[in-house]
Amino acid sequence: MSNTTVTAPQGFLAAGVRCGIKQADAMDLGLIACVCPAVAAAIFTTNRVFAAPVALGRAILPKGRGQLEAVVVNSGNANACTGAKGLRDARRMAALTAQATVCPVESVLVSSTGIIGRPLPMERVERGIIMAAAGLGDSPDHGHAFARAIMTTDTRPKEAFATLKIGRARVCVAGCTKGAGMIAPNMATMLAYVTTDAAVSPALLHAALAGAAADTFNAISVDGHTSTNDTLAVLASGLADHPPIRTRGADFRKFADALGEVCRALADAIVRDGEGATKLVRVTVSGAASPADARRAARAIADSPLAKCALHGADPNWGRFTSAAGYSGARCDPAKMRCAVGGVTIFRGGQPARHDVKKVARLMAADTVDVTVVLGIGKSAVTITTCDLSKEYVTINADYHT
Amino acid sequence: MSNTTVTAPQGFLAAGVRCGIKQADAMDLGLIACVCPAVAAAIFTTNRVFAAPVALGRAILPKGRGQLEAVVVNSGNANACTGAKGLRDARRMAALTAQATVCPVESVLVSSTGIIGRPLPMERVERGIIMAAAGLGDSPDHGHAFARAIMTTDTRPKEAFATLKIGRARVCVAGCTKGAGMIAPNMATMLAYVTTDAAVSPALLHAALAGAAADTFNAISVDGHTSTNDTLAVLASGLADHPPIRTRGADFRKFADALGEVCRALADAIVRDGEGATKLVRVTVSGAASPADARRAARAIADSPLAKCALHGADPNWGRFTSAAGYSGARCDPAKMRCAVGGVTIFRGGQPARHDVKKVARLMAADTVDVTVVLGIGKSAVTITTCDLSKEYVTINADYHT
Repeated sequence: MSNTTVTAPQGFLAAGVRCGIKQADAMDLGLIACVCPAVAAAIFTTNRVFAAPVALGRAILPKGRGQLEAVVVNSGNANACTGAKGLRDARRMAALTAQATVCPVESVLVSSTGIIGRPLPMERVERGIIMAAAGLGDSPDHGHAFARAIMTTDTRPKEAFATLKIGRARVCVAGCTKGAGMIAPNMATMLAYVTTDAAVSPALLHAALAGAAADTFNAISVDGHTSTNDTLAVLASGLADHPPIRTRGADFRKFADALGEVCRALADAIVRDGEGATKLVRVTVSGAASPADARRAARAIADSPLAKCALHGADPNWGRFTSAAGYSGARCDPAKMRCAVGGVTIFRGGQPARHDVKKVARLMAADTVDVTVVLGIGKSAVTITTCDLSKEYVTINADYHT
Repeated sequence: MSNTTVTAPQGFLAAGVRCGIKQADAMDLGLIACVCPAVAAAIFTTNRVFAAPVALGRAILPKGRGQLEAVVVNSGNANACTGAKGLRDARRMAALTAQATVCPVESVLVSSTGIIGRPLPMERVERGIIMAAAGLGDSPDHGHAFARAIMTTDTRPKEAFATLKIGRARVCVAGCTKGAGMIAPNMATMLAYVTTDAAVSPALLHAALAGAAADTFNAISVDGHTSTNDTLAVLASGLADHPPIRTRGADFRKFADALGEVCRALADAIVRDGEGATKLVRVTVSGAASPADARRAARAIADSPLAKCALHGADPNWGRFTSAAGYSGARCDPAKMRCAVGGVTIFRGGQPARHDVKKVARLMAADTVDVTVVLGIGKSAVTITTCDLSKEYVTINADYHT
């Protein structure tokens, strides 16, 4: 079986273990290590209330770029809103990982995800790091174990893989992610790690990552709630046999496309596995005065509980889409607005358009639904990917803490 | 039994009838008439996609003030996104009401609430207006019937009443409202009508209404979805025996306070009856750099499905409150932030504060919950009133259309 996990690119090892941070019988600590210093780029949450490991990550990757040799992640506890102790605990995780994988402490990226405001159970975490380091390996099973160990309310691991050719060299890009709730652009309780054996400069790696994130991880929303811990990191071992990418030429574009493809697949997998989600919805707003206006309107639709419930009920109640665009703050011309579901226009020129009601109901009941709202003002467009709102979301989130 | 409905102030008659706009066996058309031209003020939705009757209301009440003699309201159909026919239908409602109540067509305020994007069944609406005009009366039953006739997904009518003394005269202020979903500041699928026999100038009536709305109807949120039809109107018959209020003196303040009290009670009743709501939550954000920042943070908390689910589950998962403030865009200093539930501090100085967990769980299980977040930056504060998010909300809104 060919390897399509984060251990597929040359140079990467991974592990996932259970150390008892979660009460459930599930893995809760994951480790990725690179056999050599990897060029790295990362993007962190924009939330002003951010977790201790995010503070640490920003310090070791100034401007979001630098060098990494290991990534250690615990699930079940976010180490957020935990004060000075939280920062000490995150530093201790980095130090132990550096020791166990034999690398400088400044080359370890730490992430945490789970409940906010609880001190980390450090004895368990420490035991977990030692176990994980001892269990590192490059098999598909090792990669899968890492993808499982970082999960919280996710119902399944989320992995993606792409290859490309640079000259004669085969280059791999592999990634995994977690996230199901607290998902909103910029970013979410979303952790994602991408490994690649491409040889690329830190600045170009960061540029490719930022470009990929804009249309993927930063264009999804499950519940409009941006987390304290979001981290998207890419590590490039440079072990593929091609001349390093140092300019924005054809090789860079090929690599950026593959990275974008992996990010797209991972981001969609998050929405598809959104808490209680039964379908994936692409909300496209076009005809906007500016990209910001398009984004405002698309976000308003994607975040409206009323719109999400209509999508859940496969209910062609399109007034909820147009009215959300109307209150979003985006400029619109109601007399020129248009709304379509699955390509079928249901509202045009300020009034309902004749359409096949049964066909629209069928399109809305599919597992992927396209909603388009044209604002009738300008030429900007944007697509936000979201999911529906079900009773299951409430069940999951009313009882998460206790 | 004393009258505490919209027919209590001198000069007002009301009626509520069933004319078949709704499929259910429920009243769906209401009428208020004043025996003399009443000074009037109104505030309409800020949604750029607004319904035909809102367009009409803006035209007859320039700057939100003027003169009214009748208010006609249908429920079951919002007459929004209905194009030129919608505007013709709204005008026809005004004309018929003017004819039936013998007043100028420019003195009739029309409102509609219900499903968006469906043409009004005008034959039924016309029959309803004639029936309602024939049934006008000033008893409490007539006032209650109006309050019932304007309901949509509301589970109960919502009425409020206050009296004040100006000189020796007893002045009444009475109101009723509808709204349970699509409720967000500025404003909501919220219709509210207040009658009073106070004698007051149009400008001061509008000033008092705007002041009252800012802290009440414009500071509530059920689901963050601002409607296309929101209308808050006050009609003052001037029949109470006191010199007209023409300055911002003591009499104006007394009147404004009574109007504010009625608006507060009505706005709270909307939240309390929010779709699926089991509790009312007051979210106070203080220590903000500006009122706008305080509002941003309070809105983010009040609109976060994650925070609302925690409140539903009586789950002291306060990280959801502080993280929502963190992503709201409001400036905050995590090291100086504080979070309290029911007055009990649970987070302070960037870390969890020792507290009685059982007491906090008890406070969160009450039918009214206070959540306070201090941003640690400045001195501005604001309170937003909201409700929790339950499975019932999803049930109501996934099946509303069909």
